[in-house]
Amino acid sequence: MFPFKNNILLDRKANRNLYLQLCDQIIGYIKSGKLTPSTKLPGSRKMAEELGVHRKTVIAAYDELILQGWIETIPAKGTFVTSSLPIINPSNFSETGTLDKTNAKSNFSFTSRSNLLYNYSEAQENTERLIKVNDGSPDHRLAPIDEIAKTYRNITKKGYNKSLLSYGSTYGNEDLRNALVTYLNQTRGLHITANNILITRGSQMGIYLASQLLFTKKNRAIVGDTNYLTTNNTFKNAGGTIEQVPVDNNGIDTNAIEDLCKVKNIKAVYVTSHHHHPTTVTLSAERRMHLLQLAQKYKFAIIEDDYDYDFHYSNAPILPLASNDYNGNVIYIGGFTKIIAPAMRIGYLVAPKDFIDEAARLRRIIDRQGDMLLEQTLAKMIVAGDVQRHCNKVLKIYKSRRDLFCSLLKEKLSDYFTFKIPDGGMAIWVKLHKKFKWDDVVSKAYKQHLELNPEWRRYDHNNLGHNGIRMGFASLNEREIEIVIEKLQKVMQSLNY
Amino acid sequence: MFPFKNNILLDRKANRNLYLQLCDQIIGYIKSGKLTPSTKLPGSRKMAEELGVHRKTVIAAYDELILQGWIETIPAKGTFVTSSLPIINPSNFSETGTLDKTNAKSNFSFTSRSNLLYNYSEAQENTERLIKVNDGSPDHRLAPIDEIAKTYRNITKKGYNKSLLSYGSTYGNEDLRNALVTYLNQTRGLHITANNILITRGSQMGIYLASQLLFTKKNRAIVGDTNYLTTNNTFKNAGGTIEQVPVDNNGIDTNAIEDLCKVKNIKAVYVTSHHHHPTTVTLSAERRMHLLQLAQKYKFAIIEDDYDYDFHYSNAPILPLASNDYNGNVIYIGGFTKIIAPAMRIGYLVAPKDFIDEAARLRRIIDRQGDMLLEQTLAKMIVAGDVQRHCNKVLKIYKSRRDLFCSLLKEKLSDYFTFKIPDGGMAIWVKLHKKFKWDDVVSKAYKQHLELNPEWRRYDHNNLGHNGIRMGFASLNEREIEIVIEKLQKVMQSLNY
Repeated sequence: MFPFKNNILLDRKANRNLYLQLCDQIIGYIKSGKLTPSTKLPGSRKMAEELGVHRKTVIAAYDELILQGWIETIPAKGTFVTSSLPIINPSNFSETGTLDKTNAKSNFSFTSRSNLLYNYSEAQENTERLIKVNDGSPDHRLAPIDEIAKTYRNITKKGYNKSLLSYGSTYGNEDLRNALVTYLNQTRGLHITANNILITRGSQMGIYLASQLLFTKKNRAIVGDTNYLTTNNTFKNAGGTIEQVPVDNNGIDTNAIEDLCKVKNIKAVYVTSHHHHPTTVTLSAERRMHLLQLAQKYKFAIIEDDYDYDFHYSNAPILPLASNDYNGNVIYIGGFTKIIAPAMRIGYLVAPKDFIDEAARLRRIIDRQGDMLLEQTLAKMIVAGDVQRHCNKVLKIYKSRRDLFCSLLKEKLSDYFTFKIPDGGMAIWVKLHKKFKWDDVVSKAYKQHLELNPEWRRYDHNNLGHNGIRMGFASLNEREIEIVIEKLQKVMQSLNY
Repeated sequence: MFPFKNNILLDRKANRNLYLQLCDQIIGYIKSGKLTPSTKLPGSRKMAEELGVHRKTVIAAYDELILQGWIETIPAKGTFVTSSLPIINPSNFSETGTLDKTNAKSNFSFTSRSNLLYNYSEAQENTERLIKVNDGSPDHRLAPIDEIAKTYRNITKKGYNKSLLSYGSTYGNEDLRNALVTYLNQTRGLHITANNILITRGSQMGIYLASQLLFTKKNRAIVGDTNYLTTNNTFKNAGGTIEQVPVDNNGIDTNAIEDLCKVKNIKAVYVTSHHHHPTTVTLSAERRMHLLQLAQKYKFAIIEDDYDYDFHYSNAPILPLASNDYNGNVIYIGGFTKIIAPAMRIGYLVAPKDFIDEAARLRRIIDRQGDMLLEQTLAKMIVAGDVQRHCNKVLKIYKSRRDLFCSLLKEKLSDYFTFKIPDGGMAIWVKLHKKFKWDDVVSKAYKQHLELNPEWRRYDHNNLGHNGIRMGFASLNEREIEIVIEKLQKVMQSLNY
């Protein structure tokens, strides 16, 4: 006789009805093999007494179990666990700890993607005292959250287009695509129609979609050495092979690209032409033209990741390669996470229509569609000029932060670091004097409650020995910049080689 | 001499400065080959006259072009297009129509995924008079949009945790993961911790992530015949091979699964155990146990897509297989698009921790992370009981719509259709009498401004001849249901075979 009294625990405070709790637990014992097929269950009166519940509760539970096929009633004999259920070996159901263990380890095999995620700061303690220098992120404290929330609220008011709440187009919200046509043609010199736009979740999804369509079957991609490593990983994950060419003060070396094209079949070239990631160098006019020429001739795609087009502090931003793509070679990727806030997970993929259509097909099985409410909110903010206004505002703030960071770095730390003042973007490419090691600097800094860019290890994965990392200045206010420099000074002075 | 006057168009009303417009266009002519290297440009005074602008505008433009490397000044000679730029063949820049053509067609090759998207209703006219019967979608008009917008507004008020606006965890918002632990353990009988949860964008992303990890290298997946076709496509896209087994009135045939396991290496079995998609049949208790047993023995993953767990009208919902997964075999997928609204693009993947960690790594290169503001909003709504309350409310409404639809279908159309009253979900599996063809019914209906489930063609892709389609009742109110039945009556009466 199964000791129901000791094994059934009913919680009168739980949301779930008592009779359903009883069902769940009996099913659990059947499934785990503790109650085997043809086991006789106590009559409802007896069970109710044992458990201290009303008899109706037990009857309701039994009815439910019969309906679901777990138990059966045999006239004049009683109620039994269904005899046709398979007999299984009892699992260690009641042993403590078993559950945690099974929830940790799967009983099937799958592909490991461990190359895709470094020891990222996911688990880092976010203590009050810790000050962080990131890779070049915006300052989320400046995000126009009131405008976003108000616009969002307005479009959800009664009477507004309710179809935004239903399923929408995989290509993205129609109003946003139309707003982007004007916005991108005006600010980036593009000449596109809505057919050339797929709305994505931030630029990373654009890179992912393009990779999946281009790099099956070990197709070759050319990237700079060094390069934004997440892109390399995204290409490799899609099945691509990476070829690296040097990057100098004029950006990626297009002669080296040409040499490769002569001997190998190249599917795509990845560029961050406005400011090379990580070195912040701008691709020169000469190389821009050369690259477009090569793309036309060798029929490869240029994946232009224009992640910081909006941030330019001295001369006007140089228009992207996409603005002069008359042959259908450029896949242009951008987004709003840097202008507005990382929380605004909206980006765009701009390309010839045939490519956009294929990307939409693929996107349909990835996450079906975007968030129509958020996309509509952004469309309204673009049309109202809120986005451009916000951009102008933060540009001034970031420029003064760059100036302060650079002048302090030069004044206080030029014995240890060299750098060029970046003419745009959110980070400085800082090279450490060769006699020091970033390892030592980073670990000493951490003891001073200063976290240097947690991705710094990733910048020299090919052992070029440039000894550089990116220091993001945009997310730090003036006081914070002063503290960072002060702490860095202490760290460097304490390093006696 | 290049005719600048005729080719440069400056728009004084545009957002972009005149001098930048001038730059953009000169760069355009250089890149397109109309202005070749070493071409002399007019002096600033002459150019200003030709274009009718102030001389300062031209000087600013020339300065900018020099900075960017497009033009160069040779002392005592004048200003020239930079001589070191590569010479390119002039493109048909001024021919009308060229642009549209290039924006339509790419000059590189890529993988075609045309199997992934059917002639879906993306482009369908949404006319006022057209009434639609879908595949089983919720009624977005019932979405608790006020609660969502208010909660969203509250969490963005000043003083709230601003870090929600910055980059967040790839696993999902921490508060939401914790809220889901309680919610899923209580409503689904799971016994998981936050480590077993990855927040996704709706359930489709869960299916996609699982596929990418399981089905590289032509690994085999078992699905029912017939099955939810988007899943088949997602598996195939990942590289998997599909094996189909019959589905009868007790759900997917687990004996057929066992037979396959004996002769082939099976990586995963996909089930919609609560209501098989498309036939709405519930997987029987006996087969549930058998399937779990097989998974343990043959070490395959059970992908349990529990897309409509919350919608059950007669007896209580049967707990998912995941609630009795003591060996780490079940990958459980669900979401909030059906409970709340398709616009609520939040779902979850529940699995052993090692699998969740790999899925998070992959997800990081797909779209990096979710929308923290929306996830926090949902967390608050779950904790406050809003989600459960809303669910209870719509459940009553959907039940009465099911009852009305079924009774009218039986009363008015039983000469043509057969069906079982579904005990849950949002759709009825309706079989058409064999002497009729859905093709005829659908096209006749369309003329009556009645659009039958636009995905109906997808249900018999293996030519089983079941002659069934899903009719979604949940998104139609009583008046609409009456109209649908009325129109269907007319359609059927007009079909004389």
